[in-house]
Amino acid sequence: MVTSIASVCLSGSLTEKLHACAKAGFDGVEIMDADLTVAYESPEEIRALCQRLGLRIDMFQPFRDAEGVEDEVFEENLRRAREKFRTMNRLGADLMLVCSNAGTASIDDDQVAARQLGELADAAAEYGVRIAYEALAWGRYVSDYRHAWRLVQAADRPNLGTCLDSFHILSRGHDPAGIEQIEGEKIFFLQLADAPQLDMDLLSWSRHHRLFPGEGAFDLAQFLFHVLRAGYRGPLSLEVFNDTFRQTDVYRTAAHAQRSLTWLADQAAALDHRRQSILPAAQPPRAIDFVEIAGVDLAEVDHLMDQLGFAFRGRHRRKPVRLWSYGEARIILNEQPKLQTPKIAGLGLEVADSAPAAERAEALGAPPVFRNTSTGEQNLRGVSSPDGTEIFWNDQIGPDGWISEFEGGLAPNGDSGTIDHVNLSYPWQDFEEAVLFATSVLGLEATPAAEVPGPLGLVRSQVMHTADRIVRLPLNLAPPTAPVPPRHIALACDDIIAVAADARSRGLQFLAVPDNYYDDLAARFPLAPDFIHRLKDLDLLYDQDDAGEFIHFYTPTIGDFFLEMVERRGQYDGYGAPNAPVRLAAQRSLLS
Amino acid sequence: MVTSIASVCLSGSLTEKLHACAKAGFDGVEIMDADLTVAYESPEEIRALCQRLGLRIDMFQPFRDAEGVEDEVFEENLRRAREKFRTMNRLGADLMLVCSNAGTASIDDDQVAARQLGELADAAAEYGVRIAYEALAWGRYVSDYRHAWRLVQAADRPNLGTCLDSFHILSRGHDPAGIEQIEGEKIFFLQLADAPQLDMDLLSWSRHHRLFPGEGAFDLAQFLFHVLRAGYRGPLSLEVFNDTFRQTDVYRTAAHAQRSLTWLADQAAALDHRRQSILPAAQPPRAIDFVEIAGVDLAEVDHLMDQLGFAFRGRHRRKPVRLWSYGEARIILNEQPKLQTPKIAGLGLEVADSAPAAERAEALGAPPVFRNTSTGEQNLRGVSSPDGTEIFWNDQIGPDGWISEFEGGLAPNGDSGTIDHVNLSYPWQDFEEAVLFATSVLGLEATPAAEVPGPLGLVRSQVMHTADRIVRLPLNLAPPTAPVPPRHIALACDDIIAVAADARSRGLQFLAVPDNYYDDLAARFPLAPDFIHRLKDLDLLYDQDDAGEFIHFYTPTIGDFFLEMVERRGQYDGYGAPNAPVRLAAQRSLLS
Repeated sequence: MVTSIASVCLSGSLTEKLHACAKAGFDGVEIMDADLTVAYESPEEIRALCQRLGLRIDMFQPFRDAEGVEDEVFEENLRRAREKFRTMNRLGADLMLVCSNAGTASIDDDQVAARQLGELADAAAEYGVRIAYEALAWGRYVSDYRHAWRLVQAADRPNLGTCLDSFHILSRGHDPAGIEQIEGEKIFFLQLADAPQLDMDLLSWSRHHRLFPGEGAFDLAQFLFHVLRAGYRGPLSLEVFNDTFRQTDVYRTAAHAQRSLTWLADQAAALDHRRQSILPAAQPPRAIDFVEIAGVDLAEVDHLMDQLGFAFRGRHRRKPVRLWSYGEARIILNEQPKLQTPKIAGLGLEVADSAPAAERAEALGAPPVFRNTSTGEQNLRGVSSPDGTEIFWNDQIGPDGWISEFEGGLAPNGDSGTIDHVNLSYPWQDFEEAVLFATSVLGLEATPAAEVPGPLGLVRSQVMHTADRIVRLPLNLAPPTAPVPPRHIALACDDIIAVAADARSRGLQFLAVPDNYYDDLAARFPLAPDFIHRLKDLDLLYDQDDAGEFIHFYTPTIGDFFLEMVERRGQYDGYGAPNAPVRLAAQRSLLS
Repeated sequence: MVTSIASVCLSGSLTEKLHACAKAGFDGVEIMDADLTVAYESPEEIRALCQRLGLRIDMFQPFRDAEGVEDEVFEENLRRAREKFRTMNRLGADLMLVCSNAGTASIDDDQVAARQLGELADAAAEYGVRIAYEALAWGRYVSDYRHAWRLVQAADRPNLGTCLDSFHILSRGHDPAGIEQIEGEKIFFLQLADAPQLDMDLLSWSRHHRLFPGEGAFDLAQFLFHVLRAGYRGPLSLEVFNDTFRQTDVYRTAAHAQRSLTWLADQAAALDHRRQSILPAAQPPRAIDFVEIAGVDLAEVDHLMDQLGFAFRGRHRRKPVRLWSYGEARIILNEQPKLQTPKIAGLGLEVADSAPAAERAEALGAPPVFRNTSTGEQNLRGVSSPDGTEIFWNDQIGPDGWISEFEGGLAPNGDSGTIDHVNLSYPWQDFEEAVLFATSVLGLEATPAAEVPGPLGLVRSQVMHTADRIVRLPLNLAPPTAPVPPRHIALACDDIIAVAADARSRGLQFLAVPDNYYDDLAARFPLAPDFIHRLKDLDLLYDQDDAGEFIHFYTPTIGDFFLEMVERRGQYDGYGAPNAPVRLAAQRSLLS
């Protein structure tokens, strides 16, 4: 797989973009004309920098509004093009993207368009330049890739081919199967972009909302499969216009982009039994092995665990690490002198085979993390996720594993607790990256995103989960002007009323729920007044769906996290989303 | 005019919202059910707080999915409603908004819907509650205000009326003239929201992109005119679901909201010759009188003025203020000990009559600013705009005005300079507020917004101008993660090549333009090589449109601002937008 990316996908100056693309492992780049125009570096310098970085300049783009015009306009277009061909010669780029005319086209005649494309290609040939002609989804007369291909065939020049762009094809609902009818060698370039299914005008959708592969609604694996079947052997290139990616850190976004392409190539290979997989198979987790909380002083967390009924399972025999368990739920407290604010710092996942899980993650660009492991201790392989949260995989579950490294604690208690879900929050601009990491590296699936009104704006929430829904990671996105909300660990129990009463008897003050909530609850559901009174007495929240009920409470926030205790009755499948505004408002009121 | 606002428009807790609404001068509020649910204060406390603040609770909302259902579902709905009626009694709210059923409706039969609405109203009557029934634009069977009105008529209960919402009517393209057919007394409530013309699904458009009146594409003045003609005498209430306003400072947004309503009421009154104007007439500026730059040390600015060929016109005889002029362009330097970073702090506008201009601004909620004025000095009235920039109005232009207070300077030079435009930048979340302030308070018009790619994301730009385009204020919106870009003053001259050469001879280093820019320019326009060489030699930027040409350069940035010098040739009407990416990239490269 040879990868490339259009410079327009990334933030920063052209040289910053090039460094980031090289670091992320791209083989080449498409240089956007406008990025070169605003650069102080000459085309020769950019060419030399790309050489040093090992990046090919796969394409120079875009050249607009070339064909379908009156002859005198076309003469001026040829003059424009020659200036750009000269720049390309200096840059050492030999392929130019020509988009179908969306601005100045005045002649709806394929013969004219084909003749002009042929003349443009002849002019390009004088400079050793090839032309890749692409149908823009909003091209005036040419907006279908099949039409663009017919024009390329009619012009019939060796240095004229077509460029396929998944957005322009799939956004129009055009069947990509027709790509197989195109001669592979005449597909000069391939641009890939995903997009959410939005009901809006094509131009705005394309210019602002494109996503990296795997993040939107397009079936890009199938799309790529058709392109490869047609015989295309050039680079897989990303051209993603996205308001957010234009702003995010260029190194991080380049790594994110490269991850999406690797994932896509692997997905497309899986559709073709003749191809080898590109990645080790994903290892969807069977369960959450542990959650790690790190901070300089975790005494308050110990106290909270004790109040909730966790069993203290001991200190690690060598490291300043403690283990608490609640049934099958394990929480590790890792005292780290440099981390002032306690936070959820890591996640252990149980998998069938940890080696391919880690190898897949590393092949997807996730850096392996060093785990302080000594002789006789279980060595868990792990990587750092883009936001720094560490992920570890464990395929040797049980008392002989890492748990045996903890000493001096109590026996596990008999509670049947489990980790119900771990809620991870992110700044708004890191959301797509987090979702792609969860799907491609962790092997999770995404449910449709929801929005929760909070006092500081709408919080977007997307649940990532395994097919059996045993592992659930709701991802929360803070509104741009608001601080990132705390993360939390939700523990499932069998009898939350008993658990809550016990915890209260041990002095735990739950997050206080407003009385008005219970009045509203009485309106929403025909519940027995005694039951509502019991909920209110214990600050418990309640929800129901068609399949069951959900009762839960929240602990106070410690540092950047808090805990939630939940009981699922029947087949309730949600997370108490209608109650999230209550939590958000209550947590904010404690801060102000 | 009696004003109201739905609590959902604003950020914060319910009590914060109520305080902000009262401070902004609203007469009443619509309390959103969800805002009460998450509040710790009881309904009685909210009621008492509203009484103390002088706010009426005009409506409690919304009650959803009431009608068009099977009888047993309706029984449950009645039970739900009774719980809410009890809450309303405690709150002292006597009007409930009932939205047409969008979720559970299963019977498409007007007789059933009308019967159920009648029964709901009868139940409400037991609690002294009135019902305002509204057609949601996406209601399952009822999505047209005329249909909702027919159902209200059919149900025929004294405590059942209709609620009109401009979004639900205008987003569907329904003719609001039909509102005049509704009995005024049966219009129980009026909700107003503007919206941009977006090609997207109704629900997303409504839930995320509503705007305050005057900020979108709807003709709300005409809409309101019809409602008033129908005989409606209740409050004008805002119900604006907007992702941004949910996040912005609640006091500032409430003031912004109130400004929009006052403006709208005035616009609607102007359509009806029988009504008196609500506001003094707008005074669109004839010219920019001066721009004020403030900062603790402005020596660097003096030097810049001198290099550009400004004339030093003297020191103020009493205040630490200096005046420079360039033809008709006047820039005041105001040394303020507490302001470390120099910035554009104020704008003087020439108007026909300054008193109504200031009175209109104050009626629109802009606080008057104190201007340090002594006996014998011209007293300019002014207000503070929402971001703190001060606006002054002057109707006594000439040497006898405030200019005569400056002493010890040189005579004005003979240059024919003017202020071409003043570019004001804002954080992304303050953009609508700035646009509304410019239209309603300053009497400017808006051109369609454009987007400029910068190295840290897309910069949105909207030009506000007078009808004659003599006064032009482009407003720039920073991308959310990027710092707010510097503001700038653009000066127009007759011969920019001479001005640039002179400035350079005085040692001014312009913002350096990349060589690549001139290669691109040669491609874009068929310009003579000598001319391009001259531009390049002087770091001048160039643009042309159908009507003329534009040549300009930028000075280095000082503090939070810089200057631009422009020459317009022919009838060129833009601002060199194609060159803005060059400026943004160059300015950033100087920072990093």
